[in-house]
Amino acid sequence: MSSIKILVAQGGGPTAVINQSLVGVVLEARRFAQVERVYGALHGVRGIVDEELVDLTQETLHNLEQVARTPASALGSTRDKPDLAYCQRILAVLQAHGIGHFFYIGGNDSSDTVRIVADEARKAGHPLRCVHIPKTIDNDLVGNDHTPGYPSAARFVAQAFAGANLDNAALPGVYLGVVMGRHAGFLTAAAALARRFPGDGPHLVYLPERTFSIERFLADVKATYEKHGRCVIAVSEGIHDESGATIAEKLAKSVERDAHGNVQLSGTGALADLLCDEIKDKLKIKRVRGDTFGYLQRSFLGCVSGVDQHEAREVGEKAVQYAMWGDVDGSVAIRRSGDYAIDIVLQPLEAVAGKTRTMEDELIAPAGNDVTPAFFDYLRPLLGTDMPEAGRLRAPAVAKVLKR
Amino acid sequence: MSSIKILVAQGGGPTAVINQSLVGVVLEARRFAQVERVYGALHGVRGIVDEELVDLTQETLHNLEQVARTPASALGSTRDKPDLAYCQRILAVLQAHGIGHFFYIGGNDSSDTVRIVADEARKAGHPLRCVHIPKTIDNDLVGNDHTPGYPSAARFVAQAFAGANLDNAALPGVYLGVVMGRHAGFLTAAAALARRFPGDGPHLVYLPERTFSIERFLADVKATYEKHGRCVIAVSEGIHDESGATIAEKLAKSVERDAHGNVQLSGTGALADLLCDEIKDKLKIKRVRGDTFGYLQRSFLGCVSGVDQHEAREVGEKAVQYAMWGDVDGSVAIRRSGDYAIDIVLQPLEAVAGKTRTMEDELIAPAGNDVTPAFFDYLRPLLGTDMPEAGRLRAPAVAKVLKR
Repeated sequence: MSSIKILVAQGGGPTAVINQSLVGVVLEARRFAQVERVYGALHGVRGIVDEELVDLTQETLHNLEQVARTPASALGSTRDKPDLAYCQRILAVLQAHGIGHFFYIGGNDSSDTVRIVADEARKAGHPLRCVHIPKTIDNDLVGNDHTPGYPSAARFVAQAFAGANLDNAALPGVYLGVVMGRHAGFLTAAAALARRFPGDGPHLVYLPERTFSIERFLADVKATYEKHGRCVIAVSEGIHDESGATIAEKLAKSVERDAHGNVQLSGTGALADLLCDEIKDKLKIKRVRGDTFGYLQRSFLGCVSGVDQHEAREVGEKAVQYAMWGDVDGSVAIRRSGDYAIDIVLQPLEAVAGKTRTMEDELIAPAGNDVTPAFFDYLRPLLGTDMPEAGRLRAPAVAKVLKR
Repeated sequence: MSSIKILVAQGGGPTAVINQSLVGVVLEARRFAQVERVYGALHGVRGIVDEELVDLTQETLHNLEQVARTPASALGSTRDKPDLAYCQRILAVLQAHGIGHFFYIGGNDSSDTVRIVADEARKAGHPLRCVHIPKTIDNDLVGNDHTPGYPSAARFVAQAFAGANLDNAALPGVYLGVVMGRHAGFLTAAAALARRFPGDGPHLVYLPERTFSIERFLADVKATYEKHGRCVIAVSEGIHDESGATIAEKLAKSVERDAHGNVQLSGTGALADLLCDEIKDKLKIKRVRGDTFGYLQRSFLGCVSGVDQHEAREVGEKAVQYAMWGDVDGSVAIRRSGDYAIDIVLQPLEAVAGKTRTMEDELIAPAGNDVTPAFFDYLRPLLGTDMPEAGRLRAPAVAKVLKR
């Protein structure tokens, strides 16, 4: 009996593989004879309440496969964070269209939306299976070894720092790269995977899990610069002082006080510029450059981890299987089962909704300016087997003729 | 008779393929029986005057091949711009070490150094062959169809904007990316190659070859935003007003006047932030994000054009052949001979030294905010055959039930 209608949507910030999960849902759902229609909502929950739905049943396999390899949410996304009333409107639309299964691909906030919708459906006696499918470059969902999207973004950050390290070795100075991740430092920490040879940067890694002291930072940079004649630094956008105030806000204070208008701190190059100014002013180092990786780290077309692609597809597929066969609500999660192997499980929505995972202590070096070897063991298999490797000359020095 | 010593060095900003040219020189030189030693100078001309030389004759083929695939100058680079006295010190070191052939891989300034050293050698009666090997992501060397390093950087910019366009379509707003190239807009123009589907960004492209008007810019952004509900913009770091003053300087004026200290304009996110502020202030658009591509566009490990790799290797090889067989000085250049095919020629050092090529008029749209189809024809073959392509869903809309 062909009678089930499925709805899938994508929420929050895009990732390199969020469309793998979307296509995983669509193709797996289409394998079930009882599935009549697979709908997609445009721009997440916003598209549901606005009834902006498209019929993914009519997509060809080959177009779906190309979409799967494309970064950023193909259905569009939203930053809306639904409250109870909003969730009730979602439920009303799902009921009106006879949707029996709702899949929402997203992060913390999205899982909370799924939880509320599932609750409301239960209260209203509407038969609805609700499954949350994880994605986030921040890697901050609890109950997951890691989240789809993180490995590809981590790979971008590692490749970027590997290149920045080579550039900095060729033209020495201080290089500072600001990486996304307001509360969790996983993505910033990925910069460490750029190292291959002795002396390679990043030499310093600052994470939001530790209190940032500008004095200690400057002392670290000074020591590194004196040792290596150069310094490459990875900094999380979320670094903050002991009171929790972000360093970007603190450093911008003086600028803000003097100038009219606001100094915007997110989605801008402000933090990198302010830290570079500190290094130039206090350490008197001339060549100091700062980059803010910005949107490139989550959207760049053509930088993706094969492991991430595979797993993102699978969590989409498993979500459908749980909903169709298990007849349960929940949040799909990745658990590490071997070195390297994973299991995909379903955890209760309450276990993940609205919670934030940060980096475990054993992944952060005691000095608070680097990661531990355990972090390398954790991240390396996620980057895929085809990470590009830098080379280095080993040519011996030629004896001087003129100078001694 | 084994008696010739060769010296190779790398100058200016690193590129993704500058080590291909280095390895091209080393391996081609090692094929000649009369070549006794192939030396490399560390950090360009600085390493020559300091006698910091290494013996590349002792590098293995396989290590050289890995170095060739590695971005940024493996020998190290320098920003030194030698004057006559500096060039005479270079010549003194070359003479002391019995160097008969000098190869310098670099941009405009490097070719000028080679020209002066060749002149001085001639005047001093020292038998020395001097060959300049082109490289620059700016693509601003005259007499070249394009320069090694540009295609790979262009590819990075195109892939970055393809991703940024997808991200911006998923979460609509205004996105602005600032691209390197102070005088030549070739690299910024590469953003246009990100387009595939109707409505794809970048919707606007601003080049340093045209005078930038903030009023026209805001009008363009407004019109695009009204048409597409979003807007993706590529901006060259070198945009300037009719007087030649850079827009970064102009917009920063008010900030600078109020705050102490300098607002640094190069190697920072300042221009992107200032333009975003203008858009927010004047057009009242809320979601406006700016990225400055910074060092990523020239150093990213793992984004390279196969065409660029191949050509960069070949110009290194040809440089050695010209010097050994032709016994002439000059600057190696790439000329386009077919669609797509190239010839490699040698032009006089005077033809390229100290000159700057900018984008030809036929490559820039009359409105000054985009490129022409001719630019697509020019750049597309340089990016390589394996450019990643974005996909897009084509699912038809589902009829609304609740809202009419």
